[in-house]
Amino acid sequence: MSKVFVNVALSLDGFTSPSGMTLQNWKDPSIDQWGAKWGALMGWILPLEWFRQHLKLGPGGETGPVNDFMKETSERIGANIMGKRMFETGEVSWPDEAPFHTPVFVLTHEKRAPWVRPGGTTFHFFNEGPEKALALAREAAGTKDVRISGGADVIQQYLRMGVVDELELSIAPVFFGSGRRLFENLGTPPPGFTIARTLAGPRATHVRYVRAAPKS
Amino acid sequence: MSKVFVNVALSLDGFTSPSGMTLQNWKDPSIDQWGAKWGALMGWILPLEWFRQHLKLGPGGETGPVNDFMKETSERIGANIMGKRMFETGEVSWPDEAPFHTPVFVLTHEKRAPWVRPGGTTFHFFNEGPEKALALAREAAGTKDVRISGGADVIQQYLRMGVVDELELSIAPVFFGSGRRLFENLGTPPPGFTIARTLAGPRATHVRYVRAAPKS
Repeated sequence: MSKVFVNVALSLDGFTSPSGMTLQNWKDPSIDQWGAKWGALMGWILPLEWFRQHLKLGPGGETGPVNDFMKETSERIGANIMGKRMFETGEVSWPDEAPFHTPVFVLTHEKRAPWVRPGGTTFHFFNEGPEKALALAREAAGTKDVRISGGADVIQQYLRMGVVDELELSIAPVFFGSGRRLFENLGTPPPGFTIARTLAGPRATHVRYVRAAPKS
Repeated sequence: MSKVFVNVALSLDGFTSPSGMTLQNWKDPSIDQWGAKWGALMGWILPLEWFRQHLKLGPGGETGPVNDFMKETSERIGANIMGKRMFETGEVSWPDEAPFHTPVFVLTHEKRAPWVRPGGTTFHFFNEGPEKALALAREAAGTKDVRISGGADVIQQYLRMGVVDELELSIAPVFFGSGRRLFENLGTPPPGFTIARTLAGPRATHVRYVRAAPKS
């Protein structure tokens, strides 16, 4: 069966996005310095060969284990699930060819026809709850995996459901001070993970955690 | 000159100690499950050969790069600085031969004569502020380094002062849900660090961050 996984970048103080990084402020990244903070968090990804190809930024770029890791992660995705806020900021910033190339299930109360983009991305707007969205995403993914793309609240929802098989974090030495925390509201007992793989990048530490077997 | 460094274990959700882990609850680790949480956080350190020798738990134990790292860290310390709460919980739980073997400067308003322990640890109770404590600790450390031992609030105080040269974190895949957060109240702009070394342990990820050169 498809695995369900998360792959996000995390500031050292535990945020996935800085305060101020909202749809409303999208055109003014100087508000709360959100643009500079986000840029610092993602500084490791921009030079990768995979990233440059993926966003059609041109040839060249860094190769090596971190590049391979991100390429593998990208290629294993058969469907994405994301929250409404993540979609809304993406809607105004992704290129026409949205960088997913899979079905994307957007958790929202909005009723809207599927939005088909060039390059294989189709956004499905879905309001029957996260379990049902996951079932559809699994079906759409086929033999590939389902990525819970974000934001933090959506990831938390699936962590609480206990269905996240792998958690891939890229932890960068950046402090946001405030923003959206990844690991809160995790329920009791919290989910259990063990370390499966560590990649020591120069600008971020990439760790794959896998769900621990339930205690018998 | 002596370096000033921090070496702490951190839960994946960013806490150095779980809620409930207080002097008052010291004899009842079932409160808020603090004992189990703390044990899970420190699970990587207990089997190390260095740790067993350091606490006189007997021969044997794991060797390898994580053991070497902790041994080197231990040997570079010429003086420790800690907060009053950390001292108070230690006072009731350290063995007679307290595991520091250096002068320890305790930041407190209590006036108390130095407390000399067998094995080279002397606790100095100090109430003239963190800058003065650091100056004395540097003097006491000589050619060795000064460790800011904790708790989180004391580490934050020195991070805000911009004097922490190295930050060593052992990040374990454990969720506390609540407790003392390491990275908050860091001031503006927050301190800047870059990755200097990563050790991929099986139960924790050990990263040394060094202070970034100030922007000119």
